[in-house]
Amino acid sequence: MALSSALRHRCGFFGLLSQMSSSVSHGRVSTVLLSQMRNNSTSPKIKVDLNQSTGVAVLSMQSPPVNSLSLDFLTELCISLEKLEMDRACRGVIITSSQPKVFSAGLDILEMYGKSPERCGEFWRAVQEMWLKMYGSNMVTIAAISGSSPAGGCLMSMTCDYRIMADNPRYTIGLNETLLGIVAPFWFKDTMVNTVGHRTTELALELGLLYSPEEALKIGLVDQVVPQEQLLATATETMTKWLAIPDHARQITKSMMRKPTIDKLTSNREADIKNFVSFITKDSIQKSLHMYLEMLKKRKA
Amino acid sequence: MALSSALRHRCGFFGLLSQMSSSVSHGRVSTVLLSQMRNNSTSPKIKVDLNQSTGVAVLSMQSPPVNSLSLDFLTELCISLEKLEMDRACRGVIITSSQPKVFSAGLDILEMYGKSPERCGEFWRAVQEMWLKMYGSNMVTIAAISGSSPAGGCLMSMTCDYRIMADNPRYTIGLNETLLGIVAPFWFKDTMVNTVGHRTTELALELGLLYSPEEALKIGLVDQVVPQEQLLATATETMTKWLAIPDHARQITKSMMRKPTIDKLTSNREADIKNFVSFITKDSIQKSLHMYLEMLKKRKA
Amino acid sequence: MALSSALRHRCGFFGLLSQMSSSVSHGRVSTVLLSQMRNNSTSPKIKVDLNQSTGVAVLSMQSPPVNSLSLDFLTELCISLEKLEMDRACRGVIITSSQPKVFSAGLDILEMYGKSPERCGEFWRAVQEMWLKMYGSNMVTIAAISGSSPAGGCLMSMTCDYRIMADNPRYTIGLNETLLGIVAPFWFKDTMVNTVGHRTTELALELGLLYSPEEALKIGLVDQVVPQEQLLATATETMTKWLAIPDHARQITKSMMRKPTIDKLTSNREADIKNFVSFITKDSIQKSLHMYLEMLKKRKA
Repeated sequence: MALSSALRHRCGFFGLLSQMSSSVSHGRVSTVLLSQMRNNSTSPKIKVDLNQSTGVAVLSMQSPPVNSLSLDFLTELCISLEKLEMDRACRGVIITSSQPKVFSAGLDILEMYGKSPERCGEFWRAVQEMWLKMYGSNMVTIAAISGSSPAGGCLMSMTCDYRIMADNPRYTIGLNETLLGIVAPFWFKDTMVNTVGHRTTELALELGLLYSPEEALKIGLVDQVVPQEQLLATATETMTKWLAIPDHARQITKSMMRKPTIDKLTSNREADIKNFVSFITKDSIQKSLHMYLEMLKKRKA
Repeated sequence: MALSSALRHRCGFFGLLSQMSSSVSHGRVSTVLLSQMRNNSTSPKIKVDLNQSTGVAVLSMQSPPVNSLSLDFLTELCISLEKLEMDRACRGVIITSSQPKVFSAGLDILEMYGKSPERCGEFWRAVQEMWLKMYGSNMVTIAAISGSSPAGGCLMSMTCDYRIMADNPRYTIGLNETLLGIVAPFWFKDTMVNTVGHRTTELALELGLLYSPEEALKIGLVDQVVPQEQLLATATETMTKWLAIPDHARQITKSMMRKPTIDKLTSNREADIKNFVSFITKDSIQKSLHMYLEMLKKRKA
Repeated sequence: MALSSALRHRCGFFGLLSQMSSSVSHGRVSTVLLSQMRNNSTSPKIKVDLNQSTGVAVLSMQSPPVNSLSLDFLTELCISLEKLEMDRACRGVIITSSQPKVFSAGLDILEMYGKSPERCGEFWRAVQEMWLKMYGSNMVTIAAISGSSPAGGCLMSMTCDYRIMADNPRYTIGLNETLLGIVAPFWFKDTMVNTVGHRTTELALELGLLYSPEEALKIGLVDQVVPQEQLLATATETMTKWLAIPDHARQITKSMMRKPTIDKLTSNREADIKNFVSFITKDSIQKSLHMYLEMLKKRKA
């Protein structure tokens, strides 16, 4: 794999090639990426449906083709989450995808190619912001993982209070960054250690493992696996159980469990951005990205 | 549940309504609590039976009806433990309950209602002291969990070196504070993380989960489940295995595993007391407790 | 057991009686130890076989009878590892044993008896160095555990990226120091916590548990158990999968997972040596070692 060889540099970012990870599973990356390059649509990437009577919102990611985490996407997601967080009528959010076969393919590679350092920094800050908002949310957050969820998609899932995945054995979930020659940053790692423990994380991250739903259930990366057609119903039932707990007690408990991990990023945020920008703007990395994109164009043609 | 709603305030204490947790499982809280209110007995709440030849003591909690952790109870327990700790003839303690169906129902609500700040602080210091003595004991400590063990009862169990539970599926064990609108303090949380790991603790504490013996075994909250009639015999056999290990090596090893967690409380003890007192003496909380006790009286009548 | 009784002192070292642990399993310590005492062979204790085409080295420990970790052995091992680490042709190492039935019996007791403080300190520094080199290796390290692996042998295994053990139920693996009246140091403990978690480590270290291959697999102390005759082939296949991951991404990820644990020893290295030397050179401990060695000689006769 020429690219991964080209990418054997010290790096502190991740998910760079989130679509490539998708290609590993589905073999249709070039189509996906190029169609995305042409997609200038301003239609909403996030759809929010709040049930005022139950206090439960369903947040659907609907950014074709694979809910890549672009700056626009992340900005829209953060605004949606913030609105719900401020809305006293909303106590819980079910996060899912409207796109077939994929929850989210992770970070958008096009945000990292040919962009100014300022823009790259802005992008990275948005990735951090998404994580901070989701991992520290006061709402009950349940991921209804309706398709593959590599890299940044897996991270989003792990920030939730509870994870339910559709039982299709072709779907995968995991932080597969090393598989592509890149590295998950420390706060991705911390989130995974908190979810599945130190040794499982070590194996998963070093080998870039992508797990089937059953495997993910076994290691505790997801909490439940159900048939696709029961995914949303199960998430809704589960939410009811969580909402039976008094909000404030649950929120303080959640904060007690997660605050040390959140504080680590909060107090290293600028350094983390600086690291990312200095890596991603390197000539060698930009050259690798260029070659990769050219390769995709040729495949398409 | 009016109370849990009334209790949706920031709080740093736990087990406040330990009898209520018992009521959730057994539906007989009002009887229990009110009979306790009239109980001015000065009979020993703790019975200690030390076998001089084996070096093993059986410490039975015998405070009717549910071994609630009152200030008197905690004081007596700490004195008993201290005596055994100083007694060179004693190398191990089996901790169990003489009360039917319950190991301990946790903290005594009556210690927190209508008491002066000084008295509340004294109570909380006793709770800390119990934990410090048990989690840091030089003796081998085995919990023979002969009945339900919610909140503070679960904490006591978790401080032991080994936990054996009677296999009655109606018994439950867990830190169920959030279920009642309150929050386990950080050292309860730390003890549980050390026992079952981060993610299981997160789920257990956020949802206030009470586990059956089989479920507790599966997540590692207890180490063994046996028929009730074999509980003490199994604890005694297990103790023999532990006592085959040279005391000093075992003690240093135990200290190496637990000292960081113990140090966290030791160095934050006064702040932890202050937090508890300032919360519990709030008018809103005292009012909630009053309403709760009135409700119990009415039910009784 | 007179020795373990004599050894009930505060101590910060481990594996002192590694051969004794072997004796517990195999009942042939005296022969082993005394033949070793006469063994002045200068033949290589480590055999390295690097396949230039695959980039994989097989490092076989071949120090009769039980690959005890003497100063000479550790020095040779560290030199071999360093050479491989510097060799750009080498990307991965399979660590195994040429001795029948044993991977390594752990630290060599003869390095700790009748030696000057300077020599004891030199020995301990070599033990630290081995751990630092192995736990922090940039190469993929796979332990092919071909026999019993108590104390220091278990530690060596745990430093590797992946552990495969032969399925002979008579083989055991574990940090069994307490069983002998001594204590694993904090960095042994940290390595085990990173591998199997806090609670399993607490139980394992307090009781000095030695696990069968199946048991070790169940708690995650080894990753795979295969028939003895398939051990090396399986290790080789597994290595291929690991080498499919770009080196640099894997190395950074490994460092991210392990650096905090490594830093703890690095920044306490001299104090750790001082502790060890001051303990091991105590009259009482030297007397115990003397008695133990005399006992072995008598058994032999």
